[in-house]
Amino acid sequence: MVKTQPVSVIRRPIKRVTATGSAEKEDFLAVEEPLEIRLAYQNSGKSEWRNISVTMRTPGFDRELAAGFLLTEGIIKSINAIKNIEISVFEENQVLVTLSESSEPNLNTSERNFYTTSSCGVCGKASIDAIKTVSSYSLQNTLEVSREVLFTLGSRISGQQNIFQETGGLHAASLFDAAGDLINICEDVGRHNALDKLIGTALLENQLPLTSKMLLLSGRASFELIQKALMAGIELVAAIGAPSSLAVELAEENNMTLVGFLKNDRLNVYTGYHRIIGL
Amino acid sequence: MVKTQPVSVIRRPIKRVTATGSAEKEDFLAVEEPLEIRLAYQNSGKSEWRNISVTMRTPGFDRELAAGFLLTEGIIKSINAIKNIEISVFEENQVLVTLSESSEPNLNTSERNFYTTSSCGVCGKASIDAIKTVSSYSLQNTLEVSREVLFTLGSRISGQQNIFQETGGLHAASLFDAAGDLINICEDVGRHNALDKLIGTALLENQLPLTSKMLLLSGRASFELIQKALMAGIELVAAIGAPSSLAVELAEENNMTLVGFLKNDRLNVYTGYHRIIGL
Repeated sequence: MVKTQPVSVIRRPIKRVTATGSAEKEDFLAVEEPLEIRLAYQNSGKSEWRNISVTMRTPGFDRELAAGFLLTEGIIKSINAIKNIEISVFEENQVLVTLSESSEPNLNTSERNFYTTSSCGVCGKASIDAIKTVSSYSLQNTLEVSREVLFTLGSRISGQQNIFQETGGLHAASLFDAAGDLINICEDVGRHNALDKLIGTALLENQLPLTSKMLLLSGRASFELIQKALMAGIELVAAIGAPSSLAVELAEENNMTLVGFLKNDRLNVYTGYHRIIGL
Repeated sequence: MVKTQPVSVIRRPIKRVTATGSAEKEDFLAVEEPLEIRLAYQNSGKSEWRNISVTMRTPGFDRELAAGFLLTEGIIKSINAIKNIEISVFEENQVLVTLSESSEPNLNTSERNFYTTSSCGVCGKASIDAIKTVSSYSLQNTLEVSREVLFTLGSRISGQQNIFQETGGLHAASLFDAAGDLINICEDVGRHNALDKLIGTALLENQLPLTSKMLLLSGRASFELIQKALMAGIELVAAIGAPSSLAVELAEENNMTLVGFLKNDRLNVYTGYHRIIGL
């Protein structure tokens, strides 16, 4: 069942300008606000907490975003690590994740002495190696999908992208089963957040790994999006846009099927041909 | 003069699938690789160095990317802070920036105890306040531009997006003067990198602040892209896509003109109407 994301738009007066004139109108904007993710955990019997991330996101599904982020960044390995997730009542835009007593977060990845501002946060060759050690799942080969089903994926989410339709301003990440039925769709100003919300929702419903499932990305496929999909065990990723070189490399090394430039009558397959029937 | 970015594409065999068949073909991919930015500086007479950032970028203009990143993140304030920038001969994908002896980097911003994976790295209300203190320039009101010039900006970069044309996989940031003449265009898999390369090029040519200049973004306008434009003193930002709520807020607070949904016969103006003639 597809959940509806809370409508996260604001209205604002703008001027709409054409060749012949201009007029004040009301426009809808996708909301972008910071979310701080705090992690509370036990370290040698002592309670500690740490700020793990501040991300610019569209409000809504903040618990799912936090859970997904912790998993896809390798900080936790499963739903069992999470004791509680709560939206702070004291601070706006803060989520507090409390780990279960026996659970030790892998904070090495977040102790990198740098910050990043690219569309990609986690980085490079070192990271390609890192994911092999932290991912709990290696991809299965249970998914088989026809090209005809793949061609329909784009049309199956139209009407579901609530915020995008109003603002034109959001990325979407959508999860499908092998028959092409939509399982869930998440939208966000940040494409990494959209995917973290999607994976976080599945994590909180204890549905990982997402064996036999397909992920549709509304934009391009970067290294980090592929990395996040791998962390959830997703066998096939299809992007409306182009993949990058490193995205293809990572998909290939991990036996993932990667599709790009998906349209309603054609597509490119970069890796993992065997999951598409008749190739 | 527009510089040509080194062609940063690789070839790779793929399967192109249509409703009726499939064929192996050769495809071009935009290269995505990590770049590590290292900063060497003097601290109380002692030489120190630090890893400032690892960003996933398309190779090419790495020195400009590093310079632009340091400026737009508020770590340095002007070209005078930079003594030397060199591509490492020992490590692939590493740039070493050496600051001049008298120059003290502002590393507080990079000492945040978290990392981010959103499309936006720097975050939120705190950051809106922060930029007011670190930006060396407040925006001037020298730019006046007609709607007719704005309508042409998109067409002026076609033919200039070398990598995008081959791969469909890149973001572009383009700088124009008030007459609509193209000054420079930079492409990258990361939209923040494209803008950092553009601003870094201007910085290394000692052309900041970019008073009376206009920036064209190939995608959407997020908070962080507006923040980076502000750090370079750019008076007008036009995006092909939608702006986010926080991008509009930041532009308004800083007297920037923000245009969205730019097409060849219409556009939306969100803030700073006064720079567009006849509004």
